[in-house]
This record gives sequence, structure tokens and C-alpha cells, in this order.
Amino acid sequence: MARKYASLDNLKFLLYDVHNIEELFDYEYFKEFTSATIDMMLDASIDFSNRELFPFLSEMDRRGVAFEDGRVTVHPQIYNVLRKLGESDWINATRSFESGGMQLPQMMHYATEFIYTAANNPAIGYAMLTAGASKLIYSFGNDELKMNYATNMLAGKWQGTMAMTEPQAGSSLSYITTRAQHKSDGTYKITGQKIFISGGDYEGIDNIVHLVLARIDGSPKGTKGISLFVVPKMRVERDGNLADNDVITAGIFEKMGQHGYVTTHLVMGEQDNCVGYLVGEENNGLAYMFQMMNAARIGVGLMGAAIASAAYYASLEYAQERPQGRHAGSKNRDEKQVTIIHHADVRRMLFLQKAVVEGSLSLIMECAKYMDLSAAGKGEKYELLLDLLTPIVKTYPTEMGIVSVSNGLQCLGGYGYCVDFPLEQLYRDIRIATIYEGTTGIQSIDLLGRKMIMNDGRSAKLLAQAISTTIQESAAFERLKPDAKLLEEVVVSYKIVLKKLVSKAVSGRTESFLADANLFMEFCGLMVIGWQWLKQGISACKLLEKNAENVLFYESKIRTLRYYFSYELPKTQGLITRLLDNEDITLKEEKEYLI
Amino acid sequence: MARKYASLDNLKFLLYDVHNIEELFDYEYFKEFTSATIDMMLDASIDFSNRELFPFLSEMDRRGVAFEDGRVTVHPQIYNVLRKLGESDWINATRSFESGGMQLPQMMHYATEFIYTAANNPAIGYAMLTAGASKLIYSFGNDELKMNYATNMLAGKWQGTMAMTEPQAGSSLSYITTRAQHKSDGTYKITGQKIFISGGDYEGIDNIVHLVLARIDGSPKGTKGISLFVVPKMRVERDGNLADNDVITAGIFEKMGQHGYVTTHLVMGEQDNCVGYLVGEENNGLAYMFQMMNAARIGVGLMGAAIASAAYYASLEYAQERPQGRHAGSKNRDEKQVTIIHHADVRRMLFLQKAVVEGSLSLIMECAKYMDLSAAGKGEKYELLLDLLTPIVKTYPTEMGIVSVSNGLQCLGGYGYCVDFPLEQLYRDIRIATIYEGTTGIQSIDLLGRKMIMNDGRSAKLLAQAISTTIQESAAFERLKPDAKLLEEVVVSYKIVLKKLVSKAVSGRTESFLADANLFMEFCGLMVIGWQWLKQGISACKLLEKNAENVLFYESKIRTLRYYFSYELPKTQGLITRLLDNEDITLKEEKEYLI
Repeated sequence: MARKYASLDNLKFLLYDVHNIEELFDYEYFKEFTSATIDMMLDASIDFSNRELFPFLSEMDRRGVAFEDGRVTVHPQIYNVLRKLGESDWINATRSFESGGMQLPQMMHYATEFIYTAANNPAIGYAMLTAGASKLIYSFGNDELKMNYATNMLAGKWQGTMAMTEPQAGSSLSYITTRAQHKSDGTYKITGQKIFISGGDYEGIDNIVHLVLARIDGSPKGTKGISLFVVPKMRVERDGNLADNDVITAGIFEKMGQHGYVTTHLVMGEQDNCVGYLVGEENNGLAYMFQMMNAARIGVGLMGAAIASAAYYASLEYAQERPQGRHAGSKNRDEKQVTIIHHADVRRMLFLQKAVVEGSLSLIMECAKYMDLSAAGKGEKYELLLDLLTPIVKTYPTEMGIVSVSNGLQCLGGYGYCVDFPLEQLYRDIRIATIYEGTTGIQSIDLLGRKMIMNDGRSAKLLAQAISTTIQESAAFERLKPDAKLLEEVVVSYKIVLKKLVSKAVSGRTESFLADANLFMEFCGLMVIGWQWLKQGISACKLLEKNAENVLFYESKIRTLRYYFSYELPKTQGLITRLLDNEDITLKEEKEYLI
Repeated sequence: MARKYASLDNLKFLLYDVHNIEELFDYEYFKEFTSATIDMMLDASIDFSNRELFPFLSEMDRRGVAFEDGRVTVHPQIYNVLRKLGESDWINATRSFESGGMQLPQMMHYATEFIYTAANNPAIGYAMLTAGASKLIYSFGNDELKMNYATNMLAGKWQGTMAMTEPQAGSSLSYITTRAQHKSDGTYKITGQKIFISGGDYEGIDNIVHLVLARIDGSPKGTKGISLFVVPKMRVERDGNLADNDVITAGIFEKMGQHGYVTTHLVMGEQDNCVGYLVGEENNGLAYMFQMMNAARIGVGLMGAAIASAAYYASLEYAQERPQGRHAGSKNRDEKQVTIIHHADVRRMLFLQKAVVEGSLSLIMECAKYMDLSAAGKGEKYELLLDLLTPIVKTYPTEMGIVSVSNGLQCLGGYGYCVDFPLEQLYRDIRIATIYEGTTGIQSIDLLGRKMIMNDGRSAKLLAQAISTTIQESAAFERLKPDAKLLEEVVVSYKIVLKKLVSKAVSGRTESFLADANLFMEFCGLMVIGWQWLKQGISACKLLEKNAENVLFYESKIRTLRYYFSYELPKTQGLITRLLDNEDITLKEEKEYLI
């Protein structure tokens, strides 16, 4: 079993040096925090993970979840983790004081979430969902819903879920058919089915609170007729007692990975006795849900980076310990075998992982800082950038996270394929990440078809500006000049490619405009992570100039930056060639040729 | 469950039109064959697969293999398949008449192997190993070994294995320590352990014949002191009876995929009673083993392409049946949902799979034809090309096969991650392919460090010539000109890159020379598959000019070629940038920065 899954040094470097969390403490909103409290919380998170999460990772995979006689059983530690995170106020931490929260910077919350997820990705999903669902109730629900449901969720006593997908409506939510009918008491009668509901049911927890998208009778078709409801497994009656709310589990999905994380098929209202409580206004449900969904998208990106982090350290440890082969070119048969980290190709696979993990995490911190600056009242620019970056921060760490974990597995050779080492589980666990909360295809259409063109492309320009600012800042350091120049060229290409694509949209060629959205996403991901590596390079150079102690750490950042700009960023070249190509290859009529 | 796993039309197109198997029938060696027999055998293979292989794919995954009280249990169908393939002479088919074979063209044998493997990859491994091991005995063993062991293997009664890997010697075979001691009767006493031995033991089979690499006492260190032995589970005594040969199974490896294919840990000679029979000369074992290993490498490449084929058809079927979403740009909420093949990004993922599967299979046929031409006495050129292409045909179909299956899984969204559809199993099954029989790292060093430079680079030049011949041939077709030009540019880059890399080797910078062998491999793979697509394009154009009936099929080839040259081939650009870069990034001293 590997011993390390996340780097505290790296988290501190990103929090303090690259993304300057201390700057936040000058704002009224965050003034209770100091770097001492941050350090303490990070240490506590590692402690908690070492004790409550990491030791159960493999066991949860082996034991999985069970469904018998309508009852779902999960690993008992699931419930302990949720409860303890509730008790420590972690679930509620980022909310405002007046809502009972700690006003914890999102940067810090993601840092701890990264540690937890790297330690045990299936276990932490339950708490993440509960945090998102309770936050949604606090943001848009009435006082009764807050009191009756959200309080127990924050405390980690009740589980929260998001229930959107139906058998016929997955990526395409506008086809949702779950039905809500007005009742005389202001509540709604709910009937319908939801599938792929994570954390949707399990024994030992007192209640499960589903945030359900449904269509009220008479509402418009499409997304404009969708409302959001609280649909608990047990409803709180007027006398405070819990009554069965006619939400049953019809089955669970047997998955390739994340075996500890239950995925349910729910049936609501089979006995005509399922009550839903409207959240906010009728027909505005999808907009509300997007609060939770956007957070969940960043959360899934974080999950990708975190699983890749666990895989990186497991394969690094193996590479440092496993003897095999001789130095390149050695013909000396008496030479003892060297550890495999002495082989260039193994180091390449390790640098790849380090570049993906630390680059992704830096982007997550960038996004978190935008959230924090918004919370501190710093305004629209950061909201626009966050909106634009959300599909990218969901996609790069998951798509490249899969590649990264696969490289980790490859480092172990045959052992990587066996259950005695954690790599094979992590390889299975991470594969869902490009599907959860909108596939890469959906994210790519969101990025190109919506975010890049909204407000006349203002967000798209803001991103180019932000990257250019970093490039300018890097000019102070001779060592970074070649890489800064490469990134500058990529930004130029970004503008050219975007202009060309947008011209298709303007001329009404929608299908052609969006056909290669996935490649555009890949291109943007490479550019944005290059930006984050340049940022890390600047911080490392600054600290080296100041004769900071940990020279090896800062040098390692610059070496990994060099890896990224030499091996990863050039992948933009092939993408640009395709994105600037005039020929359509995958349009509708081509489907006949797929035989 | 998907209904199709391989395309007979495509196999026939490759066999007859692209690689002209009928040309072989003009040679004395293959004169017994006609296209009618080939067609019949293809049909029979599909029949056999539909009946004996495909229906058991998922079940073998679910039931897996078991190890209890020293006994290994596999799915009973494993034994049936081996026996039936033996009875139908399939195991022996490619060997000469005088050896009791059918002199079946290798092209045809691979065609049937492709069908079998696509239908059920774990089941077919047993027969493949038995074929390779028996062939090895026939090539280098004495008459007693042939009579006592190989005959029963050919008949599918006994299982064969290749036993090379030891706990301390995997990629680096020169560190093998399994010991062989001379005995007075000319046999050897064997003691040692072998791990990762596929098909190494199971109940129900009468005998298992291991081809074991071991070191005879007093032999030189390194690879020059390794000998090859037949070490059966049950040895044939002088009286013809079987006696226990002290080969025990210490355990089995629990793997992520290929659950039906048992992987054993063998201990030989614990009771001091394990006899080994030398194959060929002492200390020449690795050279013999490479006959089996080279075939196995092509076999693993074929496995990659075949699993990707099964995944392609499963995802294509899903895409044609699953309704989700509306046409791009449609705002009409009354529109019925379209099947997802109507979405450009889904088509892109399908074209990617088709390009990888059919491009890989074409390369396998190219290699098979070289084998056949060698067997027909057409000489050295084809042997050199085969030798050069072997690491590529092992690597491209496996590395890109993994990507291809992942794209298939992605087409299914959440369902792709669930066991109700075959994609998740295929995703797990194929992952071992870049590790079996030499990892991608090992193949890449073999390609660049050995094959590309041997005979003063003659093989490397032969490859460039072969591709150029195809480019010239394509000039007859206007539609292919743009793609031919792109491929020509890639061939020019190939020469430039190779020259630069070789100059490092010449100046003794071995570590730097080989550091990016993996990227060079990726580059060569893209080039060589581009070549195969151009070949397919030429055949398709010819047939379209002749007004062949199946226009849709030939058009689909040209469309997929266009996909490949637009989306895949441009990936060479980023690779060239890195390969021509002078800066070393991953050399030895950099390992300190992997923290």
C-alpha cells in the first residue's frame, strides 16, 4: 500500500505563494483567518484522512455496496465520515457567519477536499453531495426547508443528493418527465423515476434529502418548465415526526469503479404518497440547480486531480523502490539492477503525472480564488472568468487525470494491473470523472457554444488578458522567457482559432461551429494549464531569488514546468491544424459511413 | 448485449483488396488455397465465435477464476474452446504440411484470431499460448519433445505456456535466476519461481507444458547464459505414463480485467523433483524464445485491435439506438429526441474508433503478408520490415486501442461505466495490452535503439520506401492527393527526426538518444497507420472506379481516412517539435526533482 496520496508542501505553495490566500485575509469577509489557522486546518485534514479515509480506500472497493430486499448497505465508515465532517463543521464551512458557516475561503475548502478525495474518493462523495444540496436549500429554499432539512444535513446527520437524470433524460435535461402536481396545502405530489443518483439510499442514515428536478403540470416544455423540489426519503410532519415519503430504491447500478459510492435508481410516488417541497419559484429549477451543478463540476475536476495525485505518489514510491534493469547503455552484466526511476521513460511518466496533478490543482485554486474574491465583493470580472473556466476545470483534470493515472499504472508494469497495488482501483475509479455532471462533450459545447461567445466574447477576452498578465510578469525571470514565449504564441493561436470558429456561428453554421468543440476544449485546457505552470514558475523563481530554504522543491517546479512546455503544450499544434481546417469531417450526413 | 464484434466485410476488404491474399496462392507453398476456402473459413470462424466464444464473454468476467487448496478453477468453456480449436487443426494451421500443419497463410490465421479475440479475449489466450509454445518445440526441440509434448498441445488436449518472468526479472530478463542442473540422463533438475504465467494451471486439463527460461549452473551472466526448457506439470515417463513433475501453483494474480484468463505464480522443484528438458542448444534460450515472443507481440497488438473492435461495434449500436437531445442548434422544444449518432461529437468518437480498429488491423495484415512472403521464400526484405514493424504493431493497436475503447465507453455516458453494457469490461480487459510481452517503453527502446539502427539503418530506409511506394500509387486518385501530401511530409519528418536521434547515438549520448523513444514510437505509429489508411483509400478508390456494388462501404473507408488525416495524423506535429528539441528534460539527474 502506498503511503502518500497528496503533498502538503505543494498545497501550501499553491495557497500561499502562487495564489496568495493571505491577500484574502485583508478583506472584511475573511478577516478572521490567518496563515496559522490555515496551516492548522491543513494538518488536521491530513490527520483525519490518515485515520478515517485512506485506510478504508481498498476495503471499500473490495466490499462494495449491496442491495437486498430493497435495502442498500454501504461500508459503515461512510456514515462515520459524513458524521465527523458534519461535526467538525466542514460541510458548512464556506457559508457565511449569519448562515451558521465559518466563511472559510473556498481556496482552503478545496485544499482540504483535495486531501480527502486523494485519500478516499468514493467515501468523500457523500459529504460533497450533502454540502451542495444543503447549500442549495439555504440559497433558494424557505425557512421551513432550512430548519426541517438543511440543518441536519449540515450536521452530517442526513444525506443530501442531486436527482436530475431520468432514463430518457441524461445529458438532455429538457426532456425530464418527473411530475409534480399542486396540492391544496402548497406542497406537490411527486411521481417519477430518477437514475444514477449517487448516495441515494443506504441503511444507517436517518434520512436522505433529494433535490429533485420535476415538471409541474401545465408548465412549458423544455428547460423552462422545470422546477426544483426537496423530496426527502422521510418527510418531517407538522408534529416534527418523520413519515415515510414513498421514495423507494428500485435498484443500484453496478459500476466499474467507485465501488464504495452507491448509485441508485429511485422511484417516487408509487404509492401516491410522495410529497415534494418547492424550492424558490416554479419553473426556475434548472437555474437553481446550476448553483449546485457548477460547484459539482469543479468538484469533479478536483476529484480527477486528487485521484491522479494518489496515483502519482503510489507510482513514484514504486519507481523509487523497484529494482529492474541497468542504466541506459550499460553492458556490464555484473551491475546490480537499478531502481526503475533511473530509466528515462519512467521519469517521463512521472513528470507527466506531476505536471497534470499540480497544474490541475493550481487551476482549481485559481477558480477558488475567483469565488473568494466574489464573496468578498470584488465583482463581476471574477464571476465571468469563473464561469468561463468552469467547464475547463471540470474537463482537463478529468481527461488528463485518466491519462495520468494510466501512466502511473504503466510504471508498475504487470503489478499495476493487479489488485495488490492501488493503481488498478484508481484507474477504475477515475474513469467516471469525464462523465459525471456533464460529459466532456457537454462541457465542450458549454465552453465554446455558450461561455466563449456570451457578452460579445468578453469572458474570452478576459481570459486572454489574465494569461497575458502572467506572461508579462514572467519577463522578470530569464529562465522563464522561452516558456513565456511559447505560451504567448498559444494565446495568439487561441484568438485566431476562436475568431474562425465564431465566424461559423455568426453565419448560422451551428453544427460545424460546435463539431470540434471537444478539440477546442482540449486546446484551451492545454493553454490554461500552461498558464498555471508559468504562474508556478514565477513563484518558484521569486523564492529561489530570495534564497528560500527548500531549493529542491522550487527547482522541481521549474523542471516540471519545462516538462510541461516541452511535452504537453506542443500538443496544441496538431489541434490548431484541425481547428483551422475548413473541411467538415463529422457532420450529420457522415453518420451513414459509420459502419 | 451488443450483437456485433467484428466486421466480416472489413476483413475481406483487407484480405482481398488491400493486401491481396490471392497473390499468395500463386506460390507453391500456398497453392492449395483459393478465395472460396478463405471465405468458408471466415464464415466458420464467425459461426464458432457466435456459438462458443461471444456468449461467454461477460460470464467469464463475472465468474473469474478461483484458487483453493492449491487448485485453480477456470470457466469450463475454456477447456471446450481449446479442445475444439485443437480438433479443427486451428492451433497447428500455419505450420507446414510436413509438420502436420495446413500451410495456412498467416494473414488468414490472424483474420480468424481477430474474430475469436474480438468475441472473447480472455478465452482465446489459452489457445494462442498453446500454439506459440508447441511451435517453439517443433522449431527447436528434439523428436522426443515433439512426440511426447507438442502433439497433445496441437490437438488442444494439453495447455502450453511461456514462463519467463520472475519476481526480480520482468522487463529485464538478463536477471533470471531459475536454476537448471545437469543430470546424468541428459535432463536437468529445475528449481525456481515464475510469476505472471498466463494459463499456467487449471483443473480439467490433462497437462500443462511450460516453456521455461532458466540458467544452467556455470553459464555466463546476463542474457547469454539463459537456456530454454520444456518443464511440464506432468512429465512423460519412459513407459508413457504421466508422473507429477513438482511444478506447483503458489497462487494466482487477481487482475483488473481478463478475469477469465488465469495468471499464475509457479514454484518449480520444491520437492527436488522437477525435470526440465533442454530445447535446442544450451545458453541460446532467449533467441529461441524470441520466436514465440515476437509472435506473441503481434498477437497482443491484434488483441488490442480486436478488443477495440468489439467496443466500436457495441458503442456504434448504442449510438444508433439511444435517443438523447436535439439536433445541434435546434430550439424547437416539441422536437423528438434524436439518436445520439446525430451529434457530431459522438460521430467523432465513433470515427476515432473505426480509424484505430481498421487502421491497426490493416497493419497486422501487412505484417502477416510479410510472414507469408517469407514462408514462400521471398526473402530478406520482408523479414527486415517485419522485424522493424513488430514493436509498432504491438504498440499502436494497444496504446490507441485503450484510447479507442475509452471513447467507446464515453459514447454510452453513465451506462458505459456500468456492468450492464460490455464497454466497462472491455476497458478493463484491454488495459494490460500495453504491458504484456514487453511494455510500450520496452517496445520503444527496441524500435529506436535496435531496429532503426541495425544494418546501418537499412530497415528504417525500407520502411520509408514502402510508404513512398504507396504514396506514388495514390497519385492516380485525385481524392487522395491532399492526404498523400500530408503523409509525404510526415515521411520527410521521420527521416529528419531519425537522423537527429541517431547522431546522439553515434556520439555516445545513449541516455539522451533513448529518452524520448516512446514519443518516437508514437510518431512512427501515427505515420505507419497513415500509410495503412492511404493503402485502404487506394483500394476503395479503385473499387469505386470499377463501379463496385458496395459504394457505402468504400465511401466509408475514404471518410474514415479523411478523419484519420484530419484528426490523428496532425498529432505528429507536437511530437516532432519535442523530438527535434535539443534540451534533455528527463535525464538521470532530474529524478531528484520528482517529489
